[in-house]
Amino acid sequence: MKTSEVIFQPEGKRVTVPFGSTILEAAKSAGVDLISICGGRGICGKCKVIVEGGEVSPLTQIERKLLSELERSMGYRLACQTSILSQVLVIKIPEESRTGKQRLQVEGIETPVKIEPLVKKYFVKIKKPSLQDIRSDFDRLVEELKRTYGLEGLKITYDVLRRLPLILRESDWEVTVVIWNEDTIIDLEMGNSVNRIFGYAVDIGTTKIAGYLLDLNSGKVLAVDSLMNPQIPYGEDVISRITYVSNNPDGLNELQRAVVDGVNQILKTLLEKTGVNQREVYEMTVVGNTAMHHLFLGINPKYVALAPYPPVIKNGVNVKAREIGADINPNGNVHVLPVIGGFVGADAVAVILATEIYRRKKLCMAIDIGTNTEVVLGNKNEILASSCASGPAFEGAHIKYGMRAATGAIERIKIDPYTLEVQYETIDNVKPRGICGSAMVDVVAEMLKSGIIDVSGRFNKNISSPRLRFTKSGAEFVLAWKNETAINDDIVVTQRDIREIQLAKAAIHTGCALLMKKMGVTEQDIDLMFIAGAFGSYINPENARIIGMYPEIPLNRVRIVGNAAGTGARMALISKSFREKAEKIARKVNYIELGAEQDFQAEFFNSQFIPYADLTRYPETIKLLKRLGKYPKKLPPVFMSNKNR
Amino acid sequence: MKTSEVIFQPEGKRVTVPFGSTILEAAKSAGVDLISICGGRGICGKCKVIVEGGEVSPLTQIERKLLSELERSMGYRLACQTSILSQVLVIKIPEESRTGKQRLQVEGIETPVKIEPLVKKYFVKIKKPSLQDIRSDFDRLVEELKRTYGLEGLKITYDVLRRLPLILRESDWEVTVVIWNEDTIIDLEMGNSVNRIFGYAVDIGTTKIAGYLLDLNSGKVLAVDSLMNPQIPYGEDVISRITYVSNNPDGLNELQRAVVDGVNQILKTLLEKTGVNQREVYEMTVVGNTAMHHLFLGINPKYVALAPYPPVIKNGVNVKAREIGADINPNGNVHVLPVIGGFVGADAVAVILATEIYRRKKLCMAIDIGTNTEVVLGNKNEILASSCASGPAFEGAHIKYGMRAATGAIERIKIDPYTLEVQYETIDNVKPRGICGSAMVDVVAEMLKSGIIDVSGRFNKNISSPRLRFTKSGAEFVLAWKNETAINDDIVVTQRDIREIQLAKAAIHTGCALLMKKMGVTEQDIDLMFIAGAFGSYINPENARIIGMYPEIPLNRVRIVGNAAGTGARMALISKSFREKAEKIARKVNYIELGAEQDFQAEFFNSQFIPYADLTRYPETIKLLKRLGKYPKKLPPVFMSNKNR
Repeated sequence: MKTSEVIFQPEGKRVTVPFGSTILEAAKSAGVDLISICGGRGICGKCKVIVEGGEVSPLTQIERKLLSELERSMGYRLACQTSILSQVLVIKIPEESRTGKQRLQVEGIETPVKIEPLVKKYFVKIKKPSLQDIRSDFDRLVEELKRTYGLEGLKITYDVLRRLPLILRESDWEVTVVIWNEDTIIDLEMGNSVNRIFGYAVDIGTTKIAGYLLDLNSGKVLAVDSLMNPQIPYGEDVISRITYVSNNPDGLNELQRAVVDGVNQILKTLLEKTGVNQREVYEMTVVGNTAMHHLFLGINPKYVALAPYPPVIKNGVNVKAREIGADINPNGNVHVLPVIGGFVGADAVAVILATEIYRRKKLCMAIDIGTNTEVVLGNKNEILASSCASGPAFEGAHIKYGMRAATGAIERIKIDPYTLEVQYETIDNVKPRGICGSAMVDVVAEMLKSGIIDVSGRFNKNISSPRLRFTKSGAEFVLAWKNETAINDDIVVTQRDIREIQLAKAAIHTGCALLMKKMGVTEQDIDLMFIAGAFGSYINPENARIIGMYPEIPLNRVRIVGNAAGTGARMALISKSFREKAEKIARKVNYIELGAEQDFQAEFFNSQFIPYADLTRYPETIKLLKRLGKYPKKLPPVFMSNKNR
Repeated sequence: MKTSEVIFQPEGKRVTVPFGSTILEAAKSAGVDLISICGGRGICGKCKVIVEGGEVSPLTQIERKLLSELERSMGYRLACQTSILSQVLVIKIPEESRTGKQRLQVEGIETPVKIEPLVKKYFVKIKKPSLQDIRSDFDRLVEELKRTYGLEGLKITYDVLRRLPLILRESDWEVTVVIWNEDTIIDLEMGNSVNRIFGYAVDIGTTKIAGYLLDLNSGKVLAVDSLMNPQIPYGEDVISRITYVSNNPDGLNELQRAVVDGVNQILKTLLEKTGVNQREVYEMTVVGNTAMHHLFLGINPKYVALAPYPPVIKNGVNVKAREIGADINPNGNVHVLPVIGGFVGADAVAVILATEIYRRKKLCMAIDIGTNTEVVLGNKNEILASSCASGPAFEGAHIKYGMRAATGAIERIKIDPYTLEVQYETIDNVKPRGICGSAMVDVVAEMLKSGIIDVSGRFNKNISSPRLRFTKSGAEFVLAWKNETAINDDIVVTQRDIREIQLAKAAIHTGCALLMKKMGVTEQDIDLMFIAGAFGSYINPENARIIGMYPEIPLNRVRIVGNAAGTGARMALISKSFREKAEKIARKVNYIELGAEQDFQAEFFNSQFIPYADLTRYPETIKLLKRLGKYPKKLPPVFMSNKNR
């Protein structure tokens, strides 16, 4: 089959689609944020894109009607009307065609999954009752389902049973039956609607919720959207939310309502984007860390935060949508994926599922970076997992000019190691308003390479540059001068900011290092390193390695996998066997409580250095620093673990 | 084992119990209506009975305190304090010790049933979490259940899961687990409560609802109560209620609420009587005719009343108590037994279950007399069933001085065939207020035997008696003179009343006769004749046979089985295998639509005669009439069916 590669700008996201696909299809398949209210029917005119390179089909009548002359002259096209007619196509999605102003990463890797959803639809024509055939309505229905599709032993949901006599007669005995898990009739629809069957996958992060609407016939993502977790006002991190629940009699209900509302709000947007009806969404899968998992289910997470941190339930949980207040079909099933332990949740299970660590022969590591970062190490024989309190610094919190990855955020930075001049890129190419997490990683790496900071993170007082200032409140480095910015102020990085990043990356590195020690392996044994999470997709993996966020693994073995937790949720949504695999994964993984490891203190101390106290573990970085003439004259102290002493 | 036979007066109900049992235990086991608020703890002093014959244990201290001197001198005892110490004991239950003023028959036959309820309780002591054992709460619970009781693959109800962490810790990890159907945890209780496990069986009649509270550990009936069906204001019979549903937009909900409220009201009384908590009632079984079955489930019964009368569902239905609004444990299961067809319901299934017709080698017939009367004929090879619209005449409706079987109703009548003098008994031995159904059967039989009416039901104008009057509005016979009654009026039976009874009994007889024809058998082939239903328990079976309510079967083959439908509901409540048998019965029985039988008209005409147009089918009655000198000079015409012509 002839294919085309489509590159979506400004993200640079690539996808391969069949030659002749529409740009909208390519965008959906890439999971790119592109408005399409009418679902590709050429009515709404919202899916405007700019063709920057490559061949496409000529303008259609619909486009002539819906695009202005100016837009047409600028290369604007409607994604749903335009077919891809070259091997490579470069498409820019302008800001106005995006659904959210905030750039939240909601794509993921795509692991091939056999489509075998738990919800299926069957169309039947039923024989009408007669004096010769006075079988019950239910018998008529199930016997026809058995005759035509070989289905047996079917149960029926109580409220569907109540509707049964009317719907059979109103539809003149031709109905579509919605069956969950091959055993329960959860809905009945008039006529033939087998081609309309949808599902909703949700990744509930401490900070962000991402939702995906899928076509369960094709397994394709129809629309993607995300939202800040409405629980944030109750506490930025998991512990403060659990404290809220413990201190407020109605706290558990409040937090459950908040997160369910958020999940429903995303779904509403997805339904509007695609024209899918709420009743047509028959199943939902949910992943999240253990606290999010418990709060979503309305289970008190109090004991998850108290030693020895047992979760209330590890197994995947099925709840009726109606019972939990999820706005899909009221009889639809909400499947919450299993968790591993009190601090490693269903999101980690989903990452392991998506990256296929559980079935790989060679050893792999995965880090899912968020306010809590999960670290996973293993292969098909053994998997270890732990959780690191990396905090919200990478989301822009606790950083002087930190901001989320939204319009005007500096997202990439380069510093000339000799002139110390700064080059940066902002999201949407506007004047900078602040710095987002990915640029903070760049800043620390670039400052190390330029000698502005040393391996301990301290500013180098011997450097003389107008950008490096030593003020009363501490040292700072100017990234953008007042006249360049949108905030009428210099945008700087402070000594404190560097410390915040050091703490955050040290937490992650400690997790990586302790898991490797636990398993008795080194970075040389690791075949693949997966970096997951919204933030993870935007960072420069080399700079992340330079600052020592993760062990020094050759860059060609590093894979940026986007929202792998969301991908896992989608896999579980469209595949029964993946759901079963998730249960096995949750049982197989050994949770390592980092704080209980005897080397924890030493490792955490060593990990705060940039990249690491023991520089011999980062030979590539040494080479680079030596080449740039920035190799430290004085090596940092290395805390030895008990074992080594 | 030594046993005692206890006879309860005034009903004459007999029960055999172990020697030394208390009278209360015997009364429970007999299903006799006897108040016992404290449940036999010697606190309430309500279970007063009079020992009329036989040996019992001496008065206890408690009795000396709770019974007055007068009561003690009259032979009053507390049933819970008094042990049975002779082979035969005669006990009278005085009116004040009965729960209901209205006498509604709610006992049934007792078929031996192995106690194997679907709900079971398990007490477990669970290991507390530690750093060495951080299994989830749920894993701890199910693994202990597996270790101690071998239970596997358990699911947990969502709201119990939510309560799990708190209850485990509040009970210091010692809990009682309530499990339904060996697969679902439906409740958790602190400490050990395995000895408290109750169930509720309900028989929903068109006119009356009977409820039984059972101890699911012993299978024993703890209390019995009944209520007029609160749906009566919406229509006396099934068809008028279905019409109401069809004509009123909210009709279905109204009628469902009415019957569920009634069921809940009975339960409330039963709980008060026994001190059982609502939460401790974990399952409920329901029987009723198909219309009652559908209305209880909130399923529109419209199509049940339209040719070809298919039910919406035949299978037994399980619904969560919460979903249907039943006031047992909210996670408890409500099991509605299967129905046979549009007009033969779960009550008929229950009667077949209780009378064991489905497993008998010899042919049996059963009639369950009510506003609709079900007739069943069969054995383990084949069962036929039909439904007869016998109407409410036996409940006292449409009879001039008819009344329900309540205080003051004439319930038994004898007429001297020579003097035409009348002897009667009233319920509670007070002055008569009216006539109830059982007396109406007596009246017709006695009037035939006395020659007051002839085999066509006409009053004999040749008789001269002050009791027989020919008024403008028709003939009437005085049963009780004004000065004897409580209503300041003569109580009479009119020609119209006789016609009503003729129509009602003809409907039942037609059912019996057509089923026998269908199967090609005669009354000689029938081994046992079961007469079921509240009304059925009070009639004189000989008089019922004289008036031709059922075919002439030797009286020693007639069994009065009381509320057999209720008994079937109780059997299904305490036994999983009986529930499975009910499903098989519902599938096995062939429903015969009487109106569609070609002989229906002829048979119905013949059946209106007393006892029957073809007198040769009633040789015993002929003998009796001949002996009394009342054998008709002119024999009635016999309509021949098509086949015989």
